[in-house]
Amino acid sequence: MGAATAAAAADAAVAAPAPAPAPAPEATAALARFASTARFEDLPPEVLHQGRRTFVNWLGCAVGGARHEAVSTAAKALLPFAGRPQAQVLGRAERTDIVTAALLNGIASHVFDYDDTHLKTIIHPAGPVAPAVLVLAEQRGLSGAAALHALVLGVEAECRIGNAVYPEHYAAGWHITGTCGPFGAAVACGKLIGLTEPQFATALGIAASQPVGLKIQFGAMTKSFHPGRAAQNGLTAALLAEAGFTAAPAALEGKDGWGGALSSRADWSEVTRGLGQHWEAALNSYKPFACGIVIHPALDAAIQLRAREQANLAALESIHLRVHPLVQSLTGKTDPQTGLEGKFSVFHAVAAGVIEGAGGERQFSDRAVRDPTIVALRRRVSLTLDPATPTEACILTARFAGGRTVTIPVEHAIGSLTNPLSDAALDAKFLDLAGDVLTPPRARRVLQMAWSLDSAPSVSTLARAASARG
Amino acid sequence: MGAATAAAAADAAVAAPAPAPAPAPEATAALARFASTARFEDLPPEVLHQGRRTFVNWLGCAVGGARHEAVSTAAKALLPFAGRPQAQVLGRAERTDIVTAALLNGIASHVFDYDDTHLKTIIHPAGPVAPAVLVLAEQRGLSGAAALHALVLGVEAECRIGNAVYPEHYAAGWHITGTCGPFGAAVACGKLIGLTEPQFATALGIAASQPVGLKIQFGAMTKSFHPGRAAQNGLTAALLAEAGFTAAPAALEGKDGWGGALSSRADWSEVTRGLGQHWEAALNSYKPFACGIVIHPALDAAIQLRAREQANLAALESIHLRVHPLVQSLTGKTDPQTGLEGKFSVFHAVAAGVIEGAGGERQFSDRAVRDPTIVALRRRVSLTLDPATPTEACILTARFAGGRTVTIPVEHAIGSLTNPLSDAALDAKFLDLAGDVLTPPRARRVLQMAWSLDSAPSVSTLARAASARG
Repeated sequence: MGAATAAAAADAAVAAPAPAPAPAPEATAALARFASTARFEDLPPEVLHQGRRTFVNWLGCAVGGARHEAVSTAAKALLPFAGRPQAQVLGRAERTDIVTAALLNGIASHVFDYDDTHLKTIIHPAGPVAPAVLVLAEQRGLSGAAALHALVLGVEAECRIGNAVYPEHYAAGWHITGTCGPFGAAVACGKLIGLTEPQFATALGIAASQPVGLKIQFGAMTKSFHPGRAAQNGLTAALLAEAGFTAAPAALEGKDGWGGALSSRADWSEVTRGLGQHWEAALNSYKPFACGIVIHPALDAAIQLRAREQANLAALESIHLRVHPLVQSLTGKTDPQTGLEGKFSVFHAVAAGVIEGAGGERQFSDRAVRDPTIVALRRRVSLTLDPATPTEACILTARFAGGRTVTIPVEHAIGSLTNPLSDAALDAKFLDLAGDVLTPPRARRVLQMAWSLDSAPSVSTLARAASARG
Repeated sequence: MGAATAAAAADAAVAAPAPAPAPAPEATAALARFASTARFEDLPPEVLHQGRRTFVNWLGCAVGGARHEAVSTAAKALLPFAGRPQAQVLGRAERTDIVTAALLNGIASHVFDYDDTHLKTIIHPAGPVAPAVLVLAEQRGLSGAAALHALVLGVEAECRIGNAVYPEHYAAGWHITGTCGPFGAAVACGKLIGLTEPQFATALGIAASQPVGLKIQFGAMTKSFHPGRAAQNGLTAALLAEAGFTAAPAALEGKDGWGGALSSRADWSEVTRGLGQHWEAALNSYKPFACGIVIHPALDAAIQLRAREQANLAALESIHLRVHPLVQSLTGKTDPQTGLEGKFSVFHAVAAGVIEGAGGERQFSDRAVRDPTIVALRRRVSLTLDPATPTEACILTARFAGGRTVTIPVEHAIGSLTNPLSDAALDAKFLDLAGDVLTPPRARRVLQMAWSLDSAPSVSTLARAASARG
């Protein structure tokens, strides 16, 4: 006995039954096996090099963003409760416990909206993973190779989980970086501390219970809090699993699990298919511009316009852009009041690009969005929304006094997968960001250490070099 | 200009547009105003007394659960990263920073599944709120009245938000205690530290980005992690808002906000209607039994059966129960292997109730689920699922050798709103739980302090008395 005889089937009056769980493949178990058996020496060279690029780009963003008010405010609020000095807060003087340092470094690395992008899901992969990796590797005295391997594995896990639920999950309002990020951090930290396969499943389970982030926060400091908190959540999940905490063993795909609660669709074959053969981590991309990724084609065109027509800008009357509709829905702010808001205004970005010939953090500062010349020009920028225009393309048409027009088509914006930033361009971006916070010679030294991370016996030297003291 | 001309409307191919935001009332703003203007002296006496009952019941659970492996494991994993000794870990020797203490106290208070229940939503209201309140009040030297007021306001906020999205949100897989809990903790902590109305809206926004908990974790330690983490998230949200962090101002109801992402339906009038007049916090209930709430009618009947037929138990052949279908879907484990699993087995609960005449923590221990007599009887318990049977009712039919049957109907289980636990029964429950961890005289002293919390000049004396040293 001990079994139920259903007098009536439906209990929907009290709580509708959840949809039936997806059948195999078992995503959580597959990721746990992958993570526990992966070996650094099996990483294909191009995946390894992309990992280095991911780290260099992330580190530049984290150091560059370290003095932002969002970081200083979080530090002021939370350092009074923090623990012993175990890890470096990048670009700042503070050392603190690893959990708090992971949060602050995660906020700093995303606050300029200048970090890496997995274009298929719009996940910013490094933000939730690299902060957790760096602090844990520093505290435990682990090698740079272990750290880089952990970073790649974490990015792989979070991007594959993102693929399983994109776009429905993102369209529902979730900031996908913060919801998939805890899995990436849990996998990465689990690898660093040598979790067993069942412990990895537990860590993924604990991470599943802690998604972070809503798109409504775009333009507020809480947006950059998302990857920082996701890093803490995944780090905490790995530490709890290591100590023997228990969680559901199939929390991603099981009934009443992550997929069912957070997305109207979840295709777990995106996680399991070709795991360890095909690498999503190799498809990471890096922004040339410090703003929302969908603006990049327009900003690329704007800077080209300036280069070509610099002498004639006084006669520039208007700018028209043919773009994908996402440009309007994600970055359609017409009258930004702060630098953070400017990152979500295609109108500001194009005007600043034409006036200043760049799209770095300086063009998305409070100063820039209030510059009268830029404000005047952004009011003369208009859009045509065209679903047939790819998100990495646009056509810019400038009209000058007397009726002359100049048309600049961009097929693959700089920074896209087809037209990626070169290693040299990543160098320049790093030095531009970090040189503001460290001294330029120190920034060059840290840059060199970042490129050679996987040959460093420990990450501590790099972490300490990336501090700003005195 | 600066406006978009839509050449084509749909951008659904890339990301479906989120549903239009709910119209007014504005839930976030209403809660912010309510929290910032509420005064202790305006609490109706019955709401105030229910707040005391909520605190007494929660404190007994937290002290009683303090030695559970889930708490010890979390402490072992996370104390190496914790800060200065600012607050007491209840029922244990450790003092640590307030953020870590809130987590550990939250885990302890829920790990027996014995804490309070808001029956309309199945939220366990105190678990995410009281841990944050107690540590923050202790660290800042605040009065017991301030702490009790904060607790009531936090419970009110989280239960109203739960009402707005129940049952759809719960049916989707979310553990509603962990998802609504951060709002409760943010409101409570915000009140303790005197946030302004805009700061309350910010704190609610930061909390909205940090929901915790999936139902798939029921039976694992991560279930009790949920209220602990929710307490940390709300506490952190209030501290960040105090320091000047920014968040979306309408994160509950706005487009791409909490309601749209976490529920297929959200009726925000549940939050705004009668706020400050009608009190959900007055509708809290307390479990007489240390297991899932839907088992309570069956366990009530089982204990009545034992009292009536104690002399005839050797002749007991089988037990049949007519119950609501939720009893099977939430607590249908037929063969529990651990005490934690036993809390989700109606079969075990009824057998243990008949054999031992009680339903306390001892009946949901690893020992009890492996007791051969209880195991033998639980295999002779069967269910009929009947949607017409209310969740607080059941009919038990016992069959004895020779064909004699005894029928015990329960209309309103003990602990339900209609048949609540008396203050004296809460005393007995507290002493049963805390007397195992503190000495019985110490437990009686702490109990007296808990009932008179709102006349204590500070909560520190109580918190320190609830520690177990040496």
